[in-house]
Amino acid sequence: MPRPGATVTMWTLKRNPVMRKQLNIQVLLTGNEVMAGDTIDSNSAYMAQVLAEHGLKLSRKVTVNDDETQLLSELEHMAQTADVILMNGGLGPTVDDLTAQVLATLSDQPLSINADAKAQLEAWCKRRGQPLNEANRKQMLMPEGSSIIPNATGSAPGIDLRFRQTRIFATPGVPSEMRAMMPLILERIQSEWRLTSQTHVLRLQTFGIGESNAQQLITHSRFEWPGSVDLGFRASAPQMEVKLTIQDAQFKSDQLACADQIHSLFGDHVIGEGDSTLAQTVVQLLAARGQSITTAESCTGGMIASQITQVAGASRVFKAGFVTYSNDMKSRMIGVDPVALEQHGAVSEPVVRAMAAGALEVSGADYAIAVSGIAGPDGGSPEKPVGTVWIAYGTAADLRSLQLVWPVPRQLFQTMITACTLDLIRRQLLDIKQHCRYVEQRSSSPTSIV
Amino acid sequence: MPRPGATVTMWTLKRNPVMRKQLNIQVLLTGNEVMAGDTIDSNSAYMAQVLAEHGLKLSRKVTVNDDETQLLSELEHMAQTADVILMNGGLGPTVDDLTAQVLATLSDQPLSINADAKAQLEAWCKRRGQPLNEANRKQMLMPEGSSIIPNATGSAPGIDLRFRQTRIFATPGVPSEMRAMMPLILERIQSEWRLTSQTHVLRLQTFGIGESNAQQLITHSRFEWPGSVDLGFRASAPQMEVKLTIQDAQFKSDQLACADQIHSLFGDHVIGEGDSTLAQTVVQLLAARGQSITTAESCTGGMIASQITQVAGASRVFKAGFVTYSNDMKSRMIGVDPVALEQHGAVSEPVVRAMAAGALEVSGADYAIAVSGIAGPDGGSPEKPVGTVWIAYGTAADLRSLQLVWPVPRQLFQTMITACTLDLIRRQLLDIKQHCRYVEQRSSSPTSIV
Repeated sequence: MPRPGATVTMWTLKRNPVMRKQLNIQVLLTGNEVMAGDTIDSNSAYMAQVLAEHGLKLSRKVTVNDDETQLLSELEHMAQTADVILMNGGLGPTVDDLTAQVLATLSDQPLSINADAKAQLEAWCKRRGQPLNEANRKQMLMPEGSSIIPNATGSAPGIDLRFRQTRIFATPGVPSEMRAMMPLILERIQSEWRLTSQTHVLRLQTFGIGESNAQQLITHSRFEWPGSVDLGFRASAPQMEVKLTIQDAQFKSDQLACADQIHSLFGDHVIGEGDSTLAQTVVQLLAARGQSITTAESCTGGMIASQITQVAGASRVFKAGFVTYSNDMKSRMIGVDPVALEQHGAVSEPVVRAMAAGALEVSGADYAIAVSGIAGPDGGSPEKPVGTVWIAYGTAADLRSLQLVWPVPRQLFQTMITACTLDLIRRQLLDIKQHCRYVEQRSSSPTSIV
Repeated sequence: MPRPGATVTMWTLKRNPVMRKQLNIQVLLTGNEVMAGDTIDSNSAYMAQVLAEHGLKLSRKVTVNDDETQLLSELEHMAQTADVILMNGGLGPTVDDLTAQVLATLSDQPLSINADAKAQLEAWCKRRGQPLNEANRKQMLMPEGSSIIPNATGSAPGIDLRFRQTRIFATPGVPSEMRAMMPLILERIQSEWRLTSQTHVLRLQTFGIGESNAQQLITHSRFEWPGSVDLGFRASAPQMEVKLTIQDAQFKSDQLACADQIHSLFGDHVIGEGDSTLAQTVVQLLAARGQSITTAESCTGGMIASQITQVAGASRVFKAGFVTYSNDMKSRMIGVDPVALEQHGAVSEPVVRAMAAGALEVSGADYAIAVSGIAGPDGGSPEKPVGTVWIAYGTAADLRSLQLVWPVPRQLFQTMITACTLDLIRRQLLDIKQHCRYVEQRSSSPTSIV
């Protein structure tokens, strides 16, 4: 079974959507690859999000194969109810790309070379040092009476056409090209229907609180949620995003009150605003103090170091990481006592604390994260099943350790344990005393948390 | 701007699709969250893929908000042309979940408690030790004359209803529940229309050959592509998948001929079949020889070690990795001469070779990968711009080195360089002499490749 290949995220618990008199906006997607399930359509979701940020919404979305008759019939049908049709796909240079032809037939106009399209394609070829070819010439042809939507990133211009009472915007299927055209399309819609846009979105990043817990906390709180604020969750391991949307700046104080409420309900499970990640937060906190961190990893195999160093500017706080996968290397690289390894096993509190201490010593860093566990699928035992992990973290003077049991598939285990260690360091840096939910739920010895 | 959050993959260059007399199958998706762009619809792609594996295809897909009037009108319209309608969403317990009601109105039948649905919901509640609640009772209500599609993983049964000449299957929006229902739905379709299914898919994984290059190679080859074999590409950094699909076992030899052709055109850019990854291939090759590998990483910051250790069983070939982010640590952990660092800089051939040699020495591994480069966004200079990287790889006796310049955003740079290093080791292990395309294109000193 081929996998769709997409990480699907869900926004749930929409409440109190503010309805206002809406334009009827419909989307028509064309493409055999979308219909075959080989491409997951994210273009229409992007369009919907851009519209939503300006208080507009889609009322209908139709997807069909690259078939001229079918496209024509859908357009005819849509134009009966739609103020705006956003067409996507079919603007490329091949015979499958039917959009210009279909729009010409629909509007009963001949296809001819559009001067603006010609100028854009000539400039595009010139920038790339290529001669104009047949394919480019095909992309200059547009129904007479239409105008182009300039393409900043690719060759095919979009088409802007009026048909009866409906305005049709046709964009290329390549996501980056369509995205680059959306601001102009939005501007043309706003200008024609004299709309002003005042949507404001506030996003919070959280870790360690599941969607169902989050829903329950809000449902059972006494806070009266204002009708002006939309609430959405997006869970994508390991973090969960909370989105608060208002459709008018006058509701700003409601939005802030809701953010306060989320902070007070979710407590220290809130990492930060916007696009914050755990690794980013840790790097920023350390950089602000002029402190540094090192890692000694067994079962996570370098993932913690990799996430820290994915943050731009990580070199300010990260000098060295040790991937000590074998027992021997734990001793040779960071001086773990072979007797402790023999006596307690690699997945044990004394060993993981010795790993952290050794990494601190060798690297000279202020903070360390050390992990040793059983990622599976093999290597488990009745006493230490797959998913068991010991974590040590902190400074030489305040080194903490705990055990978690998180029996999930190997890569998810590595991802979640990596996130936990970064979160534990974040909590230590911020001096958060409160226990976190995942430690309460996953720890087999919660008392060992200092 | 909220991101749709999906990794979008594209299948392109469909050719010679085998057309056979098809059932007209249409999809009707309902859900405000899909229309708002907050959920990316992967359900319909999954349905299309399941159908495609059995030689069936979708002819039309419509998505609407949770609106009774709109749903009714779409169903009426669809039923004029569709043999099968796959409805998805709207079967949950809330007031927004309108599917059962809409199907009752459409078929002009009352809603009543369906005995099979009742039995399933009672069993489901019993398994979870919960009493039946109002929401569950709502889910028992179905149009008279319809039958259920059992739900193996959730509470809401699906609905199977005949309306005029059309068979309608309504499934829940929760992906896992819909997916679990698809085999039974397919069985019912096959049984009603007496279809047999013999689709066979063969997948090849490639690295280092872009989609446009791949297209050109095939287009310009003299091989006459058999009409029985569908070809698709799916590019998702860093690998590209090639898919060869036939609709009947009798075309197996055509499929194998095409696979041979791909092998001969793409050469050693083919990594393997099925789900092979570069890291997996390297781990397997080393494990088969009883050999081991170590990593010394600067700009990739642990990503190479992390990818190797994400492979189950990596401990057989991987004992240690060194994330030597600072100059000082390059010297302390793996003995790089401070004079060389001073003289040539960290991003230089002598230093990266010394890193590899040091990692081999300390770890005792047979193979090493060492990288030092400028991931950006800061740290570049006119002589060494952002994107510059030196790579050393191989054994103590056969240590190779080269420079690449790959100026892309930080995380993509780390991903691509990680993939390159694994591919270079793969090529060395397989004794591949042929130059690879990315080295030819990105190397500023191709002669330095041994």
